[in-house]
Order: sequence, then structure tokens, then C-alpha cells
Amino acid sequence: MGFDNPNQHCKFEVPEIIFGRGLLNQVGSCAKRLGGKKVFLVSDEGLLRAGWVDRVMKSLQDAGLDFVLFDQVTSNPKDFEIEAGFNEYVAQGADVIVGLGGGSAMDAAKGIAILGSNGGRIQDYRGIDQIHRPLPPLVLCPTTCGTGSDVSQFAVINDSTEKCKLTIMSRCVAPDISLTDPDTLETLPDEFLGSSAIDALSHAVEAYFSVAASTLTDVNAAQALTLLAKSFSRAVKERRADDLEDLSRASLHAGMAFSNALLGISHALAHPIGGLYDANHGHVNAVLLPEVLRYDFPVVERKLAGFAAALGHNPVGIETKYVEEMALETVDQLLDAGNAPRGLRNLGVREEDLSSLAAKALDDVCLLTSPRQTDQEDLLGILKRSY
Amino acid sequence: MGFDNPNQHCKFEVPEIIFGRGLLNQVGSCAKRLGGKKVFLVSDEGLLRAGWVDRVMKSLQDAGLDFVLFDQVTSNPKDFEIEAGFNEYVAQGADVIVGLGGGSAMDAAKGIAILGSNGGRIQDYRGIDQIHRPLPPLVLCPTTCGTGSDVSQFAVINDSTEKCKLTIMSRCVAPDISLTDPDTLETLPDEFLGSSAIDALSHAVEAYFSVAASTLTDVNAAQALTLLAKSFSRAVKERRADDLEDLSRASLHAGMAFSNALLGISHALAHPIGGLYDANHGHVNAVLLPEVLRYDFPVVERKLAGFAAALGHNPVGIETKYVEEMALETVDQLLDAGNAPRGLRNLGVREEDLSSLAAKALDDVCLLTSPRQTDQEDLLGILKRSY
Repeated sequence: MGFDNPNQHCKFEVPEIIFGRGLLNQVGSCAKRLGGKKVFLVSDEGLLRAGWVDRVMKSLQDAGLDFVLFDQVTSNPKDFEIEAGFNEYVAQGADVIVGLGGGSAMDAAKGIAILGSNGGRIQDYRGIDQIHRPLPPLVLCPTTCGTGSDVSQFAVINDSTEKCKLTIMSRCVAPDISLTDPDTLETLPDEFLGSSAIDALSHAVEAYFSVAASTLTDVNAAQALTLLAKSFSRAVKERRADDLEDLSRASLHAGMAFSNALLGISHALAHPIGGLYDANHGHVNAVLLPEVLRYDFPVVERKLAGFAAALGHNPVGIETKYVEEMALETVDQLLDAGNAPRGLRNLGVREEDLSSLAAKALDDVCLLTSPRQTDQEDLLGILKRSY
Repeated sequence: MGFDNPNQHCKFEVPEIIFGRGLLNQVGSCAKRLGGKKVFLVSDEGLLRAGWVDRVMKSLQDAGLDFVLFDQVTSNPKDFEIEAGFNEYVAQGADVIVGLGGGSAMDAAKGIAILGSNGGRIQDYRGIDQIHRPLPPLVLCPTTCGTGSDVSQFAVINDSTEKCKLTIMSRCVAPDISLTDPDTLETLPDEFLGSSAIDALSHAVEAYFSVAASTLTDVNAAQALTLLAKSFSRAVKERRADDLEDLSRASLHAGMAFSNALLGISHALAHPIGGLYDANHGHVNAVLLPEVLRYDFPVVERKLAGFAAALGHNPVGIETKYVEEMALETVDQLLDAGNAPRGLRNLGVREEDLSSLAAKALDDVCLLTSPRQTDQEDLLGILKRSY
């Protein structure tokens, strides 16, 4: 793998994808098709209040399915929440698991599914390909526009003892069906609309420049960038259904890209930061992305024109450094559109923690696909410049 | 669905995809992962002579798998060949089915798999969603660059009694794994390299303009067009490995697009022609495509710029009729690159058959997604202008 070898081997795997406004009413038929009799619905209180949980429960009823609601999921889902969910799943004799929500609810659903067929503690499955038994049937329905968890082979769970994020990566972790109903964005608060779209942006950027990228992932990463450049700013201001749908679609394309091309330095650093401070994942990436891009640009020149073009520029005949500036400016505008904070200091990160954060990031699987080989010193430099 | 409703519901489903030079040696590990003990390998004599069947058999051996070779497949595979294969599959007690070849060998493998778990005659499964039991595990390895059968939910089998093509369409028909080793194109005779790449071209064009297209399929259709415009002509002339890989990749992207967006008038007409005359499928599409494009252009203006851009043009600020001409000219050059014949008369089609061919095409599932609603008279007009 690498930029000097465009003819690399590649893999591409995505679940069955269903996308469209109003389609939350098809969750029941999806669960039924997967053999469900008693569905375990994982969601959170915000979605219950917004009425989307009711919508899904009605769809399950219409399909003649029994179900149990588990809504004890908080943001950055914790190991003990997964265990509580798993105990409930077993006690209730449920089968198909449906996750409805942002990354937290969907990753919790994945965690419960992992324990559901593999037992043990969620910590046992940390890292790459540590899951050996297939998961119970899983339908994931994103209600934010960033996480990509609905198509990805990742689950990220907070270890409450070690105060770190456990990254679990395995083909088993992708759901059977990813069902996106963009209507759910209508009730997403501005803050989360912005921060999750920024998460999609960082997925698309890091997947596009990943050493494991191929045309199979590039077309999706580029489409995500194009949709974000076209509709993000207006979607936040006017919240028109068409623009919101573009954000949902961008998130889906970015998810398809990063689940197969994987990510890079920004996410490798964001994971330990999220573990230590319980910070908003989209915001952490927003703060890091510009400095990571500046760090990566010297080794990704071959793909720079495609990147700028996806963001809406015409880079033909323009000197590399100006194309880099154009692209960075658009990324900056998108971060502003999402009202992203600037500076790790503004996320509550303590300066004295930067060294240990850089050290922890060295272990993250996301570094394996960074276009630029890095070390602890360089990572610390990025953290300091982002502070 | 339709061009006036860009926010349509969409589905996207592709098998696990593995792509890369030299990867034919991983067929064994794929079959093993799917639970294989005794593999039924479906291929043809040409691939046996070229040494690729040996390569796959070695890979099966290396994985510790037993296997049976069934190489009695001809082009446009016939119902009786499928039945012979099925009988052999049962008699040998085989499990996983591996199809190695062009569309004929892969569709034969699909047909054998359909009978393997559903019994009956292959004619019983004609049409949409007529298959109710999941197929045996299936790995498909394309050795041409056009059919897309390795990712598609279609199988096309010749009915030797009715002298027509049976189109079978069902989510069950997609394989578990699509494995492409572009090295196999090295031994593909010029004629088939050209005609199969033209088939990929017609898949990409028809999928791009399909009423069931979405960004999920468009990105793949556009990438196929871009790769063909970039490398097709040179690949045929110089047969460099990089260019051949681009053709394999174009075929894969086009397959992902058309399996989900489906096709249009060109394929609806090509199926009865292929059934009646045993003609080369790529060549039939080549003859029809320009006239089908001229027929469709009035209703696809919204997507014309994207189409022209994918083919390498800059359509900004140019009048529609000139963009249409530019795009048609490039399509024409690609047809020339593949040394495609012109005129149905040169494929052995009899003028007195045109009316009945138009009538038969009216029943083809491909018409459901044509961007322009058509009738028998218009279809006959296209056939006459293509004669």
C-alpha cells in the first residue's frame, strides 16, 4: 500500500443500504426480513422526546414484531452501559437489534450485539479482528449526519476505568442493514447538526488521503466533500429538507469511504482526547483537521487536484501551494458553517496532557493508514499547533 | 422515482469486493471462509487453456479444499448446460460454487446455484424476485471487463426452446464475494477485451441515466466512464497492465452502478436480440447505444453536464446540443476503440425480425428504469435507425 503504488489490492464491503425520507417506517419490515420476533431497540432519551422512537416502535408493531426499548445510552457510550444493555437483551430473550440514534446509540447497539453472541467484556474485543462469532442481526438507523457507524466496521466504546476510547474493528461489526431517513435531521439541535456534519467532513478528508484508498472509496469520499461544500452552510442556516438530505447523504458516502479506506492522524488523536475528556467527537476533529491537513499535504500531492475539485474548485494550471490554500480555505469555511470551536484549549484539553495524548495516539489503528508516517514528536507538534 | 424527484428512496447493495492483481490465489481462502469443503468450480475451456483454471485449482488445494471442475459452459449459457451443471453439483456433493470467467461462466454458476437450493427448472425463476431460498455460497471471479455479473443481482440464461434470454433478477443472485484479478485480462483475446469493455460502457451509460439512479450509483457510473475514457483506447493498443487494470476497475464500478440503478432501452433490446441470434452481447449494445442516447437526451438534460464531465469534457457554459454532440463523439470513439461493428445488419439481424424484437423488448425488466417512457413503435424506430 502507498501512494507510489496505485495498483494496490483493495477491499470494499458495505451493508445493504436503504436511504430516503420517511423510510423509518420500514424498520419493522427490515427486522422481520432478518428473522426478528422480538426486537431490542437501542436509542436515547433525546430521540424518545423527538418522537422518532415512537415512529420506529409503530413500524415494529405494524410488522407484527414484539420489542423492548433500551434508552439508557449517553454520549460516548460507556462499557457499563453496554453491559447493562447486554444483560437486558439476554433477560428479555430478544433477537434482532435495532440501533436508532447518533454514533453513541449505534455504537452501543454494536457493543450489545458483540457481547450478545461472543460473551465476555467489551474490552476483550479491542483492536483489529478480535471478534470470532457473527453478531445477532443488526439494523442501524442514523439520526445525525456524521458518524458513519451505520455502515462502518468500527465501534468506539469508552472504557470508564482506563478513561480511554476502545476502538473495535472487525468486519463482523458492520450491520446487516443501514437505514437512513433524512427526516430525522429536522429535530437535531443546531449544535449536533454542525458537529456531526464536521465529523463526516473529517471522515471524507482522512479516507480520501488514506494509504488504503482506492477508486472504490475515493468516489464516495469525493461525493461527500461535494455535498458538504454545496449544502452544509445553507442547511445549518435554513434547515431546508433538501439540504438536510444532502448532509445525510454526505455522511453515508463518507461512511462508505472511511469504513474501507480507514482514517488517519486526526482520528488517531481524537480518540484519546475523547476518552480523557468526554469531548464532542466532531469538535475534536474540527480543531485538529486543519493542522493534520497541513502536515499531510507534502505527501499527498498526487491527489490534491481531485480533493480541491471535489470541494468545488477548478485546480487546473494552478500552483500546488495555492491549490492547498484554496482547499484549506474551503475546509475552514465548512468548519465555520458547523460553528466549530477552534483550539484544543477551548475543548477543556489541559496543556500538560498533550504529551501523554500523543503517546496514546501512537497505538491507535487509525495511524496505520495515515498518508504520512509519523512519530510521537510530530503528533505532539500537531497537538501544540492545534492548542 | 423520476428525474423530477431527486429525493427519491434508494437502495444500494453490493457483495464483498476484493480487487487486485494476483489475487486469484485467494479464491481458496475465500471459499474456505464461506464454509466450503468441496468446491464446484464453473469455468470454460478458454480459461482452462489460458492457465487461469489451474491457478484457481492450486489456490483451492492450498486452502485444503476438495473440488470438482465443470467447464461445459458456452457463450450465452443455455438452460440445458445449467441443468447438466446442477446434476453434477448434486452428484458430487459439492458445496461452495466458484464461477471463473466472463458473463457466461458466472451466469452459469449463478444458474447452478439457483437450482442448487431451489430445485425446478431455470425457467421457473424468470423475472423479478422469483427466488425464495438463499443460494449456496458463491464466489465470482470475472476474467473479462464488462459483464458486471460478479456484483449484480442479475443472471441471464438462454432458453434453448423459446430462443430467448431469460432475465432473472433477485437480491439472492448476487454472490457472497466478488473477486477480480485484473491480470486475467492479459490473455483475453482483443475481440473480447473490446466487446466486454463496451458492455461496461453501456452499463455505465444506462445506469447513469436510469430513473432509479442516486448518488450511490452515479459516483460509480461516472467513475467507470472516466476510467474508460482515460484508458480504453490505449489498453486495446498497448495492453499495458495499468490500463488493463483500469478496464477491470471500470467494469466493477459499472457493475455496482447498474446492479442497483438497473438499465434501460439498450439492454431491453439487446436481450431479445441475444436470445434470437446468439450474438455478442457487447456488440449488440454497441450498435444500439448511440441511437438510444439520442432518444434519451431530451429527457435527461439535468444530468447531461455530469455525463459529459465524467467522459472528460468541460461542459460549463456550452449549449446543450453541443454538449450532447461532445458526449456522443466520445462514446463513438470508445466504440471504435473496442472495434465495435456498426449496424444490426452486420450482426446477422434480419430486417423482418425487427417488429417482433421490439415487441419482445416491451416485456424486459430493463424498460422499467428507462429515463424515457417508450412504446413498441419507438423501440422499432430505434431498431430501424440502428439497422
